[in-house]
Amino acid sequence: MTTAEIITTGAELLNGSVTNGHARVLGSMLGRLGIPLVRDTTVIDDPALIVSAIKQAVAKSDLVFITGGLGPTQDDITREALCEALDLKMSLNPDVLEHINKRYAQSGSRAMEGRERQAMVIDGADALLNPVGSAPGQRLDHQGGTIFVLPGPPSEFISMMQHHVLEWIAQHLLVGAAPVEKVFMLAGIGESEIVNRLRDHALVGSDIEVAFCAMPGRVELRLTSHNVVALEQAALQVAGHFGEHVYSDRRMAMEQVIGEKLLASGQTLGVAESCTGGLLGGRLTCVPGSSTWFKGGIISYADEVKVALLGVRESDLQEHGSVSCPVAEQMARGVCEKLGTDFGIGITGVAGPDGGSPDKPVGLVYIALAMPSGIEVQEDTFRGDREMIRESSVQRAMSQLWRALA
Amino acid sequence: MTTAEIITTGAELLNGSVTNGHARVLGSMLGRLGIPLVRDTTVIDDPALIVSAIKQAVAKSDLVFITGGLGPTQDDITREALCEALDLKMSLNPDVLEHINKRYAQSGSRAMEGRERQAMVIDGADALLNPVGSAPGQRLDHQGGTIFVLPGPPSEFISMMQHHVLEWIAQHLLVGAAPVEKVFMLAGIGESEIVNRLRDHALVGSDIEVAFCAMPGRVELRLTSHNVVALEQAALQVAGHFGEHVYSDRRMAMEQVIGEKLLASGQTLGVAESCTGGLLGGRLTCVPGSSTWFKGGIISYADEVKVALLGVRESDLQEHGSVSCPVAEQMARGVCEKLGTDFGIGITGVAGPDGGSPDKPVGLVYIALAMPSGIEVQEDTFRGDREMIRESSVQRAMSQLWRALA
Repeated sequence: MTTAEIITTGAELLNGSVTNGHARVLGSMLGRLGIPLVRDTTVIDDPALIVSAIKQAVAKSDLVFITGGLGPTQDDITREALCEALDLKMSLNPDVLEHINKRYAQSGSRAMEGRERQAMVIDGADALLNPVGSAPGQRLDHQGGTIFVLPGPPSEFISMMQHHVLEWIAQHLLVGAAPVEKVFMLAGIGESEIVNRLRDHALVGSDIEVAFCAMPGRVELRLTSHNVVALEQAALQVAGHFGEHVYSDRRMAMEQVIGEKLLASGQTLGVAESCTGGLLGGRLTCVPGSSTWFKGGIISYADEVKVALLGVRESDLQEHGSVSCPVAEQMARGVCEKLGTDFGIGITGVAGPDGGSPDKPVGLVYIALAMPSGIEVQEDTFRGDREMIRESSVQRAMSQLWRALA
Repeated sequence: MTTAEIITTGAELLNGSVTNGHARVLGSMLGRLGIPLVRDTTVIDDPALIVSAIKQAVAKSDLVFITGGLGPTQDDITREALCEALDLKMSLNPDVLEHINKRYAQSGSRAMEGRERQAMVIDGADALLNPVGSAPGQRLDHQGGTIFVLPGPPSEFISMMQHHVLEWIAQHLLVGAAPVEKVFMLAGIGESEIVNRLRDHALVGSDIEVAFCAMPGRVELRLTSHNVVALEQAALQVAGHFGEHVYSDRRMAMEQVIGEKLLASGQTLGVAESCTGGLLGGRLTCVPGSSTWFKGGIISYADEVKVALLGVRESDLQEHGSVSCPVAEQMARGVCEKLGTDFGIGITGVAGPDGGSPDKPVGLVYIALAMPSGIEVQEDTFRGDREMIRESSVQRAMSQLWRALA
């Protein structure tokens, strides 16, 4: 069975500067082709660590991706490490150099140093020209497997995958022996409760692998098997049993599901956000074409904005405080009125780390949903830090709307 | 020199379901203690891969973190893999079981299965009770090094680090021989231009390691050296030369820098967002205490919202289109007026993938900044996909405000 792995290099991925998203992107792309990504080794720009990672990867997997360290600077040592690990040589490729010179000319850069280094191609490898950056990639056959060397910046990595890698894989690698998977996205039910019920009701058989991933406000349940018939049967049972909690039977984000439902019903949505500060609007508008059903929102971070733009009553702010059920309600109603939408969501809460009190602790969030049939408010107390509380609020608000649309 | 590494397990980290943020969190925490995180090995729940990763990690690093796979289900095999890799035994710890039973009782779960598995502690290890979840962690001395086994869910991982790990490291590991680093965050200048200028002006000496990380709208420049005096000198030169582009000499986000400046000047900010849909507001309100200087905003995704809530002229929408300089201007001015803020940012653009035209291609974004001294509008054409274009817009808008506040 073909397996893939990725080696990612760069100190910035391990010192807290940035989050390493390559494994997610690659895993998702390869998953669609039936090839599992089994390991991601991320190392600092240290020759010994890179060489060791390459040796292990080629020993284990037929498809190895190496990203990062292809730039013009001295800390870009991936090419050299690959030569050392596999005892290969490289030489300057004039076509690649010309392409690099063109790219630098387009971007108006006068930087000369390092261009030759970037144009070094491993003997026997195919150079993969970079449509959105200067660093070219390389494809190399090695002992029956294939190695792709790709640039590290996410936009360049993705672009190279689309231009040079995915089609090559589809054409050259036999795919089919991979196990089949079924994914369910669930909201409003916890992981342990799902485990419990799966067992109590014997919903899956022994030849089916079950895996979970709990995220703020949602759980991904994944069934995998080589036995397609058993898998289909189990999937039907799971769908039947957890139906009310399943918001998608594909790996789909809640905002996409909501978008499809609103698009179908021809209804529109507006948001009034306090503690989430625009995150919900930002999430909903991730969905291409969301302008059809999402009209906009009001970020009422300050109380005076709640009053002036959403019509929240000052007396309620004074009596109940800005984090309260009546204020959430008036925010949701207010945004519906102001924007003329069918649905309105109002979120107000204590995201912390400061601002909590015994009555209203950090994590307390009120989410109101105004809809044609009336209004409902939900009180939650989320755990975690500021980021977690805001993320959970966004997810819960979307779940609430999804239930109303169901 | 003490080095650290992390092994992360879970199919969901490699199949596109979620982004693996552990290395970033851990690298940031350890970096503050002067301990570099040098490798992150992420593998699926496969015994052979986990065992191999553990063997290599303990051979290389004195501090090894293993996360994930500590839950109650069958795919949670980290404990077993650790025993196999290091030839250890484990046994049921009654205190841990009692704690787990309490946690499940609190959460109202009836799930019984797997509790005993979760209570298995490696002989000789210290159990680390989990303040926010059921899965306990473990700390284990092994051949002169230390292994921490921690739960995988991000909130639990972070909480365990804070409760059980960081203080232990501070108390038990001698730190000091680590190289010193200086970080500069730059905006308005590209990576290649920085490389160029560093060389042309001989701003850093040979005993200083230079590394870059280019992100949408900003570049992190990192100088590292064991020679503190040379590093200080180089840092002064870099600060002097790139001064106008340096928005922080620490690893700080632009939103924090802006927040500090607004806090100091006692001025306030509001945002009017179209293509970014709330992302800018969401980013600004990441900063704890942002309510002092951020009043809120209007997400004017639909044109009618631009007119009704921000006072954008219909004639300009018709004549110039919603993605245009006058509309951005009127959005920025409108939000200042509506919210009574000193500064207002208006963003309108074509985020794609659809909606582009020869005149107004995908990536075209207008960002207007209204301020006490007047208004300025910037036209940009960003590359990349919808997510990249929106992220670049947010970052560029913040840079524009930062320059105005400087």
